[in-house]
Formats: sequence, C-alpha cells, structure tokens
Amino acid sequence: VSDPIWKKGAISLDEAVQTFCAADDVVIDRAFFLADIAASKAHADGLVRIGVLSEGEGQVIGEALGALGQRFTEGTFELDARYEDGQSAIESVLIDELGDVGRKIHTGRSRNDQVLVAVRLWLRDRLDDARAHTLAAAEALLLRARATERVPMPGYTHLQPAMPTSLGAWHAGHAEGLLDSAQALGAARELVNANPLGSGSGFGVNLALDRDGVARDLEMARSVVVAQTAQTSRGKLELFCLQALHLATLDVRRLAWDLSLFQMSELAFVRLPDAYTTGSSLMPNKRNPDVVELLRALPAVVEGALAETQAILNLPSSYHRDLQGTKAPLVRAFSRALQGIMLVPRLVEACGWNEERMAAAITPDMHATDRALELVKEGVPFRDAYVRAAKEIPALGARTPAQSLQARVSLGGAANLGLDRLEARLRALR
Amino acid sequence: VSDPIWKKGAISLDEAVQTFCAADDVVIDRAFFLADIAASKAHADGLVRIGVLSEGEGQVIGEALGALGQRFTEGTFELDARYEDGQSAIESVLIDELGDVGRKIHTGRSRNDQVLVAVRLWLRDRLDDARAHTLAAAEALLLRARATERVPMPGYTHLQPAMPTSLGAWHAGHAEGLLDSAQALGAARELVNANPLGSGSGFGVNLALDRDGVARDLEMARSVVVAQTAQTSRGKLELFCLQALHLATLDVRRLAWDLSLFQMSELAFVRLPDAYTTGSSLMPNKRNPDVVELLRALPAVVEGALAETQAILNLPSSYHRDLQGTKAPLVRAFSRALQGIMLVPRLVEACGWNEERMAAAITPDMHATDRALELVKEGVPFRDAYVRAAKEIPALGARTPAQSLQARVSLGGAANLGLDRLEARLRALR
Amino acid sequence: VSDPIWKKGAISLDEAVQTFCAADDVVIDRAFFLADIAASKAHADGLVRIGVLSEGEGQVIGEALGALGQRFTEGTFELDARYEDGQSAIESVLIDELGDVGRKIHTGRSRNDQVLVAVRLWLRDRLDDARAHTLAAAEALLLRARATERVPMPGYTHLQPAMPTSLGAWHAGHAEGLLDSAQALGAARELVNANPLGSGSGFGVNLALDRDGVARDLEMARSVVVAQTAQTSRGKLELFCLQALHLATLDVRRLAWDLSLFQMSELAFVRLPDAYTTGSSLMPNKRNPDVVELLRALPAVVEGALAETQAILNLPSSYHRDLQGTKAPLVRAFSRALQGIMLVPRLVEACGWNEERMAAAITPDMHATDRALELVKEGVPFRDAYVRAAKEIPALGARTPAQSLQARVSLGGAANLGLDRLEARLRALR
Amino acid sequence: VSDPIWKKGAISLDEAVQTFCAADDVVIDRAFFLADIAASKAHADGLVRIGVLSEGEGQVIGEALGALGQRFTEGTFELDARYEDGQSAIESVLIDELGDVGRKIHTGRSRNDQVLVAVRLWLRDRLDDARAHTLAAAEALLLRARATERVPMPGYTHLQPAMPTSLGAWHAGHAEGLLDSAQALGAARELVNANPLGSGSGFGVNLALDRDGVARDLEMARSVVVAQTAQTSRGKLELFCLQALHLATLDVRRLAWDLSLFQMSELAFVRLPDAYTTGSSLMPNKRNPDVVELLRALPAVVEGALAETQAILNLPSSYHRDLQGTKAPLVRAFSRALQGIMLVPRLVEACGWNEERMAAAITPDMHATDRALELVKEGVPFRDAYVRAAKEIPALGARTPAQSLQARVSLGGAANLGLDRLEARLRALR
Repeated sequence: VSDPIWKKGAISLDEAVQTFCAADDVVIDRAFFLADIAASKAHADGLVRIGVLSEGEGQVIGEALGALGQRFTEGTFELDARYEDGQSAIESVLIDELGDVGRKIHTGRSRNDQVLVAVRLWLRDRLDDARAHTLAAAEALLLRARATERVPMPGYTHLQPAMPTSLGAWHAGHAEGLLDSAQALGAARELVNANPLGSGSGFGVNLALDRDGVARDLEMARSVVVAQTAQTSRGKLELFCLQALHLATLDVRRLAWDLSLFQMSELAFVRLPDAYTTGSSLMPNKRNPDVVELLRALPAVVEGALAETQAILNLPSSYHRDLQGTKAPLVRAFSRALQGIMLVPRLVEACGWNEERMAAAITPDMHATDRALELVKEGVPFRDAYVRAAKEIPALGARTPAQSLQARVSLGGAANLGLDRLEARLRALR
Repeated sequence: VSDPIWKKGAISLDEAVQTFCAADDVVIDRAFFLADIAASKAHADGLVRIGVLSEGEGQVIGEALGALGQRFTEGTFELDARYEDGQSAIESVLIDELGDVGRKIHTGRSRNDQVLVAVRLWLRDRLDDARAHTLAAAEALLLRARATERVPMPGYTHLQPAMPTSLGAWHAGHAEGLLDSAQALGAARELVNANPLGSGSGFGVNLALDRDGVARDLEMARSVVVAQTAQTSRGKLELFCLQALHLATLDVRRLAWDLSLFQMSELAFVRLPDAYTTGSSLMPNKRNPDVVELLRALPAVVEGALAETQAILNLPSSYHRDLQGTKAPLVRAFSRALQGIMLVPRLVEACGWNEERMAAAITPDMHATDRALELVKEGVPFRDAYVRAAKEIPALGARTPAQSLQARVSLGGAANLGLDRLEARLRALR
Repeated sequence: VSDPIWKKGAISLDEAVQTFCAADDVVIDRAFFLADIAASKAHADGLVRIGVLSEGEGQVIGEALGALGQRFTEGTFELDARYEDGQSAIESVLIDELGDVGRKIHTGRSRNDQVLVAVRLWLRDRLDDARAHTLAAAEALLLRARATERVPMPGYTHLQPAMPTSLGAWHAGHAEGLLDSAQALGAARELVNANPLGSGSGFGVNLALDRDGVARDLEMARSVVVAQTAQTSRGKLELFCLQALHLATLDVRRLAWDLSLFQMSELAFVRLPDAYTTGSSLMPNKRNPDVVELLRALPAVVEGALAETQAILNLPSSYHRDLQGTKAPLVRAFSRALQGIMLVPRLVEACGWNEERMAAAITPDMHATDRALELVKEGVPFRDAYVRAAKEIPALGARTPAQSLQARVSLGGAANLGLDRLEARLRALR
Repeated sequence: VSDPIWKKGAISLDEAVQTFCAADDVVIDRAFFLADIAASKAHADGLVRIGVLSEGEGQVIGEALGALGQRFTEGTFELDARYEDGQSAIESVLIDELGDVGRKIHTGRSRNDQVLVAVRLWLRDRLDDARAHTLAAAEALLLRARATERVPMPGYTHLQPAMPTSLGAWHAGHAEGLLDSAQALGAARELVNANPLGSGSGFGVNLALDRDGVARDLEMARSVVVAQTAQTSRGKLELFCLQALHLATLDVRRLAWDLSLFQMSELAFVRLPDAYTTGSSLMPNKRNPDVVELLRALPAVVEGALAETQAILNLPSSYHRDLQGTKAPLVRAFSRALQGIMLVPRLVEACGWNEERMAAAITPDMHATDRALELVKEGVPFRDAYVRAAKEIPALGARTPAQSLQARVSLGGAANLGLDRLEARLRALR
C-alpha cells in the first residue's frame, strides 16, 4: 500500500483524529468501487486518446483495472482500512502492480472527480433498480387488479365507512401511485446521467481532456459542462434522487398501512402469508405482521438520509471535506429502500383476501352517496338530494355492492378502472 | 352564507374546537381560489356535456364563477372566516346567487376533489414561475459569464487557495447548476399536470363524468386514472415539487454564500450595491449584506415545508383530515422561494467586481497543479510530477493568471467554458 | 415614524428587495412586542442605575412604554409595515413622543439584543403555557384513569389482539407520557430563563451595564455571561424548546391515533362527541373525527419548525441576517401546538366509551400469556410454559377479563396502576 | 443456537424476507448487549426476590450472564446473524448452557422490555459520555480564555468587521455555549434514567415483579410506572436525547466554522496543527483543514437520526415492528458525535494564533461604536451620537484595541469575562 499522495513528511496523524476522519469511509466506498474502476478505465482511455498515455500504457492499466474489479467481485481483494478511501486504493494498487505506469493514472483528475463520477454511475444503476422494482410492484398490482375487478370492498375515508369500492380499484390505485414514482425516478436518472469527470478540483486542468468521449464510453447522455458545477452538484443531485426514491417508499408505506389495518382481527379482510409474519417472545397467541410494519417504516431511512444530506450543504461553492458525509446516507437509503420495494410483488401475490368479510362490511348507509346522485339524475339539485338521501338510509339495505360498483362508470371508478391505460403507461415507463 | 352542507342539526361546535379546526385554512385557500374557480367552471362544463346540467345552467354557473373570480381579483370579494374553506365558499356563493342551480355545482365531486385539482393547477403555475425565474437567473449569469470570461479570480477549495480560475467560470458554474434545477422543476410539472377531478371521495361516482374532457379544458396532459390514486397522491406530489424547488434554492444559497465570502473586507473581491445592504442599529460603521444572507437562508423555508409535509403522510390510503396540513407549508415555501429567486438576476447584474483584488489574491503556489501537469506532458508520471511541482513553487511567481487560464482547455475549463452549449440548453428548457 | 437609525443617505431601497427583506417580519414581531416592551423597560431602569439616564428620564420612558403596551393590547396601536420591525418600532415611538429622551433608549443595546431577550421572555411564557396545558391533559387523563380502573379493554400490539388491559391503564399510560413531556418543557425553560441583554452586538459595550440587575427585574434566574454566547445561542435554544414541545405533541398524536382507531365502526370502542366531528360534502352518511385527525397532525408543524430552524444555523459565530428566519417557525409551532394541546382535557372528558364492545373484543387467546405465567408459578420453565399455553388456548374461554386484570399486580399493571405516584409527580411538576 | 421462541411449526421464512426483517439488527444490538446483560441480571435477581427463581437458579444465571459479558468484551463471543437479535441471543445462550434454568430467564418480560431497558441504560452512559466530553471541551476553552483574555481580535457580524473583541472572549463564548448543552444533556439523562423493565408487552404481567427493586439495582432514579408508557416512550425519549446531543454538535460546528474562516490565508488568524490537516491528491500546494470541516458536518448525522426517528413514530400506542428502526440512527448519531466532540479539547489547545494578524485586522472604523457610547456618557442622545461617531471614523485611527477592550466592563464584555462564574457553572454541571 503506497502512502497517500499528499503525505509530504513525517507528520504523524494522531489516531483519534484519523479514526474520526476515516469514519467508515473506505467501507462505504465499497459500494462505489466497481463504478470507480469503470470510470478509471474510461479516464485512462481518454488519456490515451489525447496522448498522455501510450496505447500500451492504456492497455495495461485497463487490464489491471479489470483484474482488480474481478478480484473485488470475487472477494479476493478487500477494500479496507489499509487504504484511505476507495479512490486512493485504485491508484495504490496500480502503482504497486505497474510502477511508473500506475503513477500516471491520476493525471488530470482529483479524488473528488472520481467520487463524483462513481457516485453518478452508482446512482444511475440504483435508480434503474428502483424503477425496475417499482414497476414490478405496479405490474403485480395491476395483475391482481384484473383478477379482483368485481370483488366488492368497503371504501373508507377518515377510517370511517364511506362507499363501496372494489378490491380491483384498491390494487389499481396503488399501482398508479407507483407509476408516478417510477416516472420521478426516471427524471432523477436523466439529471444524474451526465459526466462530471474532468473537472479537476472544480477549475478544470491544463490538458485537452476528451470529456465528451469519456461520457460516451460511460454511456452518459452529456457532459456536465462547467468544472465548478461538477463539484457543486455534490449533494444536490443526491437529494433529488433520494426524493424520487422517497416517493416510491411512500407508495409502499400506504400499501403496508392498508394491509396492517385490513388484517386487524376486527376487519379480517386479508390474511398475510405466514412467511410474512412472526410471533411474540412473551405472548403465545400472537402472529405479528412484521414485514408489513417494516415496509411501513421504509420511508424513514430515506427521510433520515434527506435530512442528513441537507444539513451538510450550507456551504460556499467548491469542495469542502464536509461533503464526504453525503455518501453514507445515500448508500444506506438506497440499499434499505430497494430491499423493501423488491418484496412488494410477492407480498401482493401472496395476500389472501376474505371476500365474505369485505362484503359483510358494506353497510346500507354506504349507499347514500349513490342514492343522492341518482336523485340528481332525476333532476333534484345535489344539495337537496344529499339531505334526502341521508333520510333514506334505512331503505338502502336492499342494495347490493355489485349494483353500486356497476354504476361507477367514470374513468377510474370501479366499473371503469382504466387498466389498459395503466398497463400502457407501465410499458412506456420501462 | 349558506350552512356547511354536512351540518345536519343543532350541534353547536365549540369555539376553541372551531378555531383549531379552521386554523387559517380559509386564508390559505386564497392562494388556490382562482384555480378552484377555473376547475369549477371546467367541472360544470363537463356536467353539461353529460346532461346533468342544462346548457343554460352551465352558462349561468360559468358566468357567476367568472364574476366571482373577477371580484376576488379586484378585492371586492374577500375569502374569509365567513366560509369554512375556499371550496365551500364557491358553492355558497353560487347558491346565494343562483338558488337551485347553484345547488347543482357540487354534483359528483367532493371538496377533496376540488382541493386536489386546485392545488395541481396552482402548483403547475408556481412551477412555471419557479422555472422562469430560475432560467432568468441562469441567463443573467451566462451573460455575465460572457463578459468576464477572461477575468482571473482565485479558485478555492476548503476555503484555501487552490488554482486560478476566472470570474466567467464562476458565473457559468452557477448558471449550469440552475439549469439542472430548471430541468427538475420541469419534471415535477409533468407529474403534476394530470387531472384528478372526478375521483369523488376516492371511489368514483355513479355518473359518467367526462374526466378526460375536463382534463383537456384545464390543459392538463392526462387524467389521473384511478379515483383512489387521485386522493393518495396528496402530499406525495407536493414533496416532489418542493424538492425540485429546493434544488433551485440550493443554487441560490451557494451563490449567496460565495458573495457573502467574497465581500468580506479581507477579500473585497466584490462590492454589493447599496440597495442590497443595510446598516446596524448599534454600530455606526457597518454595511451588512442582508439580502445575500436572506438568500442564503432561502432553502430553510423549503426544508421546513418538506419536513412538515413528510410528518403528515404516515397514514393509510384515502382522505384523513390530517392532510389539510399539506397546504400551508406548500404555499409558504413557494411564495418565499419565488420572492428570493426572482432577485437573483438583478443582484448578479449589480455586483461590482474588483479585478485588481482578485488578481492580487492569486499567489504563486496556486500554479503548482499547472506545473505538475506540464511535467506530465513531458513524460513524468503524475505522482512524481506532483512531488516535483511542490518543490518548484518558489519558482512559479513569474507565471500570470492569464497564462494559466489560457491553458485550461478541457470542456468547462476557463479557456473552454462551453457557453454556447449552456445557452442552447437554457433555450431548450424554456 | 422615524427613519431606520442606520439609513444614512439617499439610497432608495428597491421595492422587491424590501419586500423580500421585510418578509412578514414586523407581523411576526407582534408575538414578541409585549416582551420587547417589558425588556426595554428593564433596560431603561438599568440605564438609570448606572447614570446614563436620569431618574426622570427613566420614569417618562417607563410610562411611555407602559402606555405603548396598553395601546398595543387594546388594539389602538398597530405594529405594521410602517415600522421595519418591532424593535425599531419601540425606539421610533419613543422618539416621536419623547424627542431627545427617546433617542436615548437604544443606548448600549443592539436590535439583536432586543430580539434575544424578547424571544427568551416569550419562550418562557409559552413553555409555561405548554407545560400547564400538558399537565392539565395529564390531570384529566388521571381523573378518568381513577374512574375507569376496572373497565376491561383489549390490549393490542402490532394492531393485533394481545392481552386484556383496562381503560384505566390506557388513560394512565397517556398521562404518564405527558408528565415526561412536562418535565422536558421544564428543562427547556431552565435553559431559556437567562438574560442575554447587554451583549451589544456580541462583543459587549463600553458601559457598566447592570446586567444582573436587569436579569432580576425580568425574573430571570441568571445572566448569559459572555456577550458572544448571547448571540450564538440564537436558534440553538429555539431547537431545544421546540423539541420539548415536540414531545408533548407526540403524546397527543398517540392519543389521537388510538381514538381514531377505537372509533372505527368495526371496533366502536369509543364515540367521539358530535362537537368533535364533522360531515362530508359529498357523502350524506359520514361523521368524521376531524378534531382527532388534526390533533394527530400536530407534530407536523413542530417538525417543520425544527427543520426550518436547523437549516439556518450552519454559520460562523455571531449575527447574520439569516437568523431572522428563526422567529417565524418558532411562533408558528408554539401557536399551533398550544391550540391543540389545550383541547385534550375536554376531549378526554367527552369521550363516550362502550364497555360492552370492549369486553366482547377480548377473545380467549388473549389469556394465553396469563396462563403461561401461571404455569411458571407452578414451576414450569417459561419457555415450556409458553408452548403449553399456546396449546391450551381453546380452554381459556371460561376466563373473564376481570380475573386477568386482578392478577396484573406488578407496579403499572392493571391491578396496580400507581395512580398515587403519578398524581404526586404531577403535583411536583406544577 | 435455539430456535426463536415463537417459531411454532415448519414455516420456512423466505430468504429475502428474512434479510429485510433482520436488516443489521443483530449487529446494531452489539451496542446494547452489555446493557442487556446487566438488565437481565437485575431481572433475574428480581425474579429470585419474588420466588420465581430459586437463589441457586439466580446465582447460576447471574454467573452465566457475567461470563457471557466477559466473552463478549474479550471478543470470544460474537453477536452475529446466528441469533435473531441480541435479546434472543441472551436467552439462547442461557438455554444452551443451563438447560431448564435458562428457559426461565424470559419469565415475565418481553423482548421489547429488554430493548427498552437496554436502550435506556446505554443512552444513560452515552449521555454521560457526551456530557463529559462537552464539559472537557468547555474546560479546555476556559483555560485558553484565561490565557488569551487580553489578546485583541477583530469581532465580526455578517462576516463584516464590527468591533474589537478579544481572543479570550471568543474562547469563553464557545465555552459557555457548551455549558448550556451539557445542561441539556443532563436534563435528557434525568428523563432517561427510569426503569421500564416489567412492562411485559405494555400491559404488565400477572406476577408481583419487584420493579422498584430492579430500578434500584440498575441505579435508576425511578420506575416508569405504567406498562403502556414504558412502550410508548420508545422513540420519544430517543428524540429528546438526540436533540440534547444535537445542541453540543451545534456548538462544535460554530467553533469549527470560525476556525475554518480564521485559517483562510486572507485572514490567517489561526494556524491549525498539521495533524489536523491533509493534502490534495491533485494540487501539490494544498493543506486542507479536513478535521475542522468534518467537525462542522457533525450535526448532520444527528439531524439525520432525528428525522429518521421522527418518521417512524406516527403510530397508535404500543409496540409495532416499525419501532425497530429507532435503534440504528440512535447508535449512529451518538457514536459519530462522540468521536467528534472528544477531539475538541486537543484541537483547541493546538491552535496557533497569530496575534499580529488579528491586531492588524482591527481597523479604525471598528471603534465607532465605542465612540458613540462615549458621546452618550457626555450626554448626547444615542441616536445623535451614532450619527456623529460615523462622521468621526477617520479620527479614530489613534485608538488601540487594548483601550477598547479595557472599557468593555459590562459582565461578559472583554474586560469582565466572568470566567469565575463560568468555571463555577462547569463544576456544578459535573
């Protein structure tokens, strides 16, 4: 392991200081390591194109980087506290292996440069993952919506019985929310997918770096133009990506809240599969919906990450070490959120719905709104119809939920769920 | 003023309860009132198309709504505590003026329906405002960037002298950040611009509402399909819009921080116009950069609004009164942020830069990176070049900032700021 | 209205800038105005004691301040945009009324000084209010706990039936949480109750101000010693006070959540009084628990205020105009939270509990834990007892809730609620 | 390793579900493990006192727990994914080692009980640590304040030159802020130091647990009385403790911000020791104040933890699995904050101040406030004195900083820093 490049003399860094500075930075960098290697490869290829590296040098560096990535993936190279951070590790390995050629890799870039590009590449992948899982959840819900379109279910507002609805509408409603979130994740990806590499320390360098070429090699849609912007985007982009992710976790929370409520023994609309529940260590009679509750808590990690990132950014332009703190919450939030979102499709498929319980919970008063609007169709002004319908509630007991649902013909109502439209949007978002 | 439609009997609502429930809800609704009127008009037109209202009824309702909007704008109609909220006010006015015809306006919609569509229409406008102001700020900065492309300026990282840069790069860097934020604001607009009207209470209604027609009349790109989604999008969309707005305020804060720093008497790179400073009530010698400091605080209101909105959303699906609390922070954050962002163009134009002070602050050591990379071009491996350049610092005093800037030829460096590209992106985002 | 003291020349402040700077600062200052007047009086008295004002000058200033407070309270003096802020208003009125004597009031203090002391005085009162309301809520709950000690109620964890408990335990449990919060509010008060006046602009002044005497006059327990600390406590103290307030709103939210759940028609454990519910504009059949839902949202305003204040404080020492932004969220959060907390005692008293429904909801399996622990008392290791009890559930149907409660003899269990202890703590916290 | 106690049959928990549920819960529990062991010992002793365990059983359990703690501390027992969580691990080890006797340890307690008491014990220690480090930082600052009482330093507001102050005032000012925070940490400790053990699942148990005796053994000041409160305090107490910790990190941030600013080469008031700086990987000329910048970022982790915890708590009473998520942010925030706060004493001692640079930065205009107040002492009304002093600025060049400081005689001014008083408060807070 070579010394940090900036370590000039015999200064012994005090241990507590070093612990504090390092934090678990190098461990967090494991998340970004493969992205850093890929970007280092693209950087080296760019240096070849402008003649700073020879073709041969580019080749051996490329091979060494490839091998390092391989060993890291296989677990034979461990990124740990021997290295100051992931960025230094790459240079250190290349120097150890390639000597003077390795000493050339850091030409025209800073460690911040490396972090910026690696974080963007990693984020692009995580946003793609998040979008894929979000769309998979939407797809599972839409499939269930098709299958349950005619299953009556009591609709609540304020946790109070409101109107009959259908299990299909419930499934489709959650699906459409996820489509919105997938769109937001896509918008975040677009913002992220620009190459910051080549910004140096935020002021560019006196080399004719082929920045657009590097962007192309990394399959990025454009270059971040100004060197300063590449640096000051740090944290800001992360916030936008976290917010898009947050939307998806909010969808999951709504779904989880509903299930948590619907599985109460007093409602018993749904039975969660045993694999999604656990017991109590004290009470022999319990089966607890732990998975659903942990899914309900999913937004918390993202909100924590948002707050932690926000707290750092009150700074003048360009790099300050404070910004190191933006990495940990980002990794933590995406890892946890993805772990949760990916469970949704199978959870949705595994729920056992009790149609009798749901039908029985639809009480006569819940038909009052239907009745009021029928009176409207007969010419009664709505406000008068509203009063009359309230009085007629006792007479509404003969109505069936099915009748109510059949009449819900506006787009998005139980009789007209617009599933085709949602499926088309799902396909377009893929 | 008519009674609230749901007020059935002689229940006297206790005053403290009423104060607590009303909060300043009706005052906040002033922000959304014109949007609510516009959506009410579209709703009425839709009811005409499906035969619930006659052409004549639709016409008088439309005229009454138009007149109400006019009076509200002129200040002759005050939306105040006589009404429970803005939504009720519209119905109440129509009933007072049109009698039975007025009693028909609320057919097939709920107050939540009204809030949902009005908030989306209002947000669409505010996002457009935010984008316009953000792009105006970017444009002002790009203009200054053109004019100051060759003005040397010391570049800092960690608040320490780093490398020479140019005032043009500084301006362009801030401009590009704002372009990113404008793109995010556009993405938020896309998500918002869908019609929720017709969701009833989240379960649709037994009328064949022409929801897509209403969407068209409101110039919305699509309908929110599922009735439940229209309701559960509440708060979630607001968060995404607030986050996009947040990005723009973060840009403004960075700019303000830089100015706050650069105007310190020890640096004196910039003099803020007197109109942007104030004095001290105790110290006769002070001129304080208050505007810049208040701009630096701009993200705070948005972060407060994000947290306030987040705190409400941990709820099962469909409407709960808790959600009323999403309106106030939204209005507060957009109002304040817009007030601030719109000041940026003139602030940027009015700054007086001191080129001598900036040039003088570029010390010989700041050329060391240039020197290291020159050695690289001569074939020295970067790491060795780095060590040699550090030793040569005393000899770098003869270099001029201009030389340094001219050599910064990579895209986004001082000699190649890519202003054409930024201007093209600015135009595309308009 | 006199000009701002720092306005030296003919600079015309641009209107948009002025709007942005003023925000609604002067309106917010209404909250602090009486505290500012009281502190101004104490400051003037202090100036008399050190000979800067004559006895006679102190007297006329005191009288003018008293009259101003009176007029403000009566509504004949309006603090509005004629004044830059509340602090300037006081000086301006004194100058208009007393001429040269009025010109002396600002001796040895800055506007920040005024803000600091006024905010602390105001906060002290609000913390006292919050504590009083919190303790009143605890008291109402303890009274109900006494009355309902023997009323069985199903106990839930994970929203699943767990064990029998009592309505008394539920009431007492909420009461004790509020006692904790009252203690936190008291701790915040202790931190706040120190006199910052006399710090000048954070560096003291060349007068022998009688700071401890002013503290005594304002009934503050001590002086903030160092001038710089007085300034840098800005925002930090606010956060601690907001957090103490937050705890109380969290208690209210838990209570509200329980009521929201218990009033579901499927449970129907509690009926909220009509004065605490409202109807729907669309659905004739609804009575919605709006008050309880708005109480559930109470922490949101406080969390928003915490975030907004946090966002401002990332600054070097001493005053920056950014800090103006700490006032609005503070006032907003305390006003709203107090409005809500004060409703709790009457809400608690007005709830109509349905003892039959609660008793009926206690199913045989909920006695399994009791049974397991009985086996333990017979010598069976708990883990084995747990397994046996699970098998014996069908046989537990003969047990009554009353039996179960009587055996809950540990401190804090249903048969030993420790109400005396809680009442004693309540008295001690007053 | 024994099976989880609640695992009744052959249900195979799906792996992704298990990963999601476990998260790194068992790893986080390492923080609480020794506290859990100590509380388990106290619980066993309590069971002995009420006859549920024999003296002999209590003894072997106590010994086995002691040995487990020892092995854990030495590293020969690893708390890892073999166990569901730390709580289960203790029971599992006891059963493996003691058979039937081990099966008795969980009598009358739930895992939540264990978590509650372990978290409170752990928090009590961490709050003590935080208070000790905070007071150590204050002490170091007060020592430096004594030594630098007469060293002039320019005072800034709005980052603009304001008035002369002293380096002693700067040190003392930061010290006093830390004393406030130590007081807040003490208040949090008082709230935390109450025994929740014996609450069962929030409803007590049918055993006569000696809860006050257990409290005494754990050196806790009182018992949490109501079983329900013990459970619903979860998260709420954590927030209050985090907020107290937050205050201390805000103090550190202010200090770090000042140092970051004062070490700018344009000011050069302070030189940070080399051990507290690092270099750049690209720029050979840099020494960056990384430690100070990371200290400036210290509040971020705490703000993240506050937000993450807040996001979870919007729940009805009693336990839900969501609450598991309160542990990780708590451990993260305290660990990081303590790592940082403990560096402050040595940082403060190691700073090299440049008295010449500071003296030279005190410009004539900074004496204007002194001059105005001198005129006041001669009888000129302050407002007129202010105007005259502004005009006299050119004549103030002859004044020395020392003169200015000597006249700052109010408590907390440079000539009267009140260090005795601060030292006394420091001692009282220990």
